[in-house]
Amino acid sequence: MDEKRLEQQIAFCREIDKEKFIGRQTWLTGATRKENDAEHAWHMAVMTVLLSEYANEEIDVLRTMTMLLIHDLVEIYAGDTYAYDEEGKKTQKRRELVAADRLFQMLPEDQGKKFREIWEEFEAENTPESRFARTMDNLQPMMLNAATDGKSWADRGIRLSQILGRNKNTAKGSEVLWEYAKENFLQPNLEKGRIVEDVPLNEQNK
Amino acid sequence: MDEKRLEQQIAFCREIDKEKFIGRQTWLTGATRKENDAEHAWHMAVMTVLLSEYANEEIDVLRTMTMLLIHDLVEIYAGDTYAYDEEGKKTQKRRELVAADRLFQMLPEDQGKKFREIWEEFEAENTPESRFARTMDNLQPMMLNAATDGKSWADRGIRLSQILGRNKNTAKGSEVLWEYAKENFLQPNLEKGRIVEDVPLNEQNK
Ligand SMILES: [Ca+2]
Repeated sequence: MDEKRLEQQIAFCREIDKEKFIGRQTWLTGATRKENDAEHAWHMAVMTVLLSEYANEEIDVLRTMTMLLIHDLVEIYAGDTYAYDEEGKKTQKRRELVAADRLFQMLPEDQGKKFREIWEEFEAENTPESRFARTMDNLQPMMLNAATDGKSWADRGIRLSQILGRNKNTAKGSEVLWEYAKENFLQPNLEKGRIVEDVPLNEQNK
Repeated sequence: MDEKRLEQQIAFCREIDKEKFIGRQTWLTGATRKENDAEHAWHMAVMTVLLSEYANEEIDVLRTMTMLLIHDLVEIYAGDTYAYDEEGKKTQKRRELVAADRLFQMLPEDQGKKFREIWEEFEAENTPESRFARTMDNLQPMMLNAATDGKSWADRGIRLSQILGRNKNTAKGSEVLWEYAKENFLQPNLEKGRIVEDVPLNEQNK
């Protein structure tokens, strides 16, 4: 038994409890409060179990779930950067790299290296798993926004062009799920004026 | 494309958002608020990725993570039953069975059957995966209780015999992690009087 190894692992497990305090901008069902990163990660991991059949390419489900469960951990030190916060996004990459160095070095070397690689893969979006993970990361908040009458979009006057910009890679993980999202999450909220229709919905990606 | 199938899956994904409102008795780091079921599930899934090497028997990590991610979903309808609530525990099984029927039938038949089987396996604790999952389900709150100066134990005057009773199967998933928990989570809190020492720590399971 390598006692130092187990102590490092448990110290890391204790540290990541803090992810439960990293707030996001998505309202939960009933719109009484917003989601945090840990809840978001849990939700996407379950969704991956159920929806992996719609991935454009075959994916390793365990790797994809692990990616989704840990990809926001850097926000424990770097904070959440809202998808439409253009100022925050300028420094996001640098803040998150510093956070990754600090966080993953808490683990035994082999596991720190593995988590770091999985996190970098998510950021690079250059594998079937990371493309599908990105699809989940975009689909889940759209689903909840639609379920709360588009509150998160309407409160901030979000325009369709912003949503399409954020979702420019969503179809790369799953064409089926992106088509579903457009029809069932975006279209009804455009019709109700909860999203500003500054561009047509079905001419993106052309 | 089977549209009904996808609609059922998305309806289920939307429904389980409610797990984020099912409160538990565990205090989070800093003891400013308690944990909910979704956060708890997320935490244990990440811990499984890191700690599966300590399972007594080889485990299928994907199945174990899936089990931990979904095993509390029935509480959306049945509510959380606190580990030391003896009255609530009398009706827990029946309430959870009714909840499982209602929840899992929302899914396409194959996936509903799969989730139900995984949930029943967790309850039965008769496989290496379910034994390890139970170890996680016991270890994670002990870790957080220890990290918050034993608040959850002390506030309720919890006795060691109750904790050992709840943990009677923890070693069956991982001897190493149970030994670690006794030494690092329980012993210090016995010494500080945060847990009532009504029986000796190291004579259980004999
Ligand atoms: Ca429970």
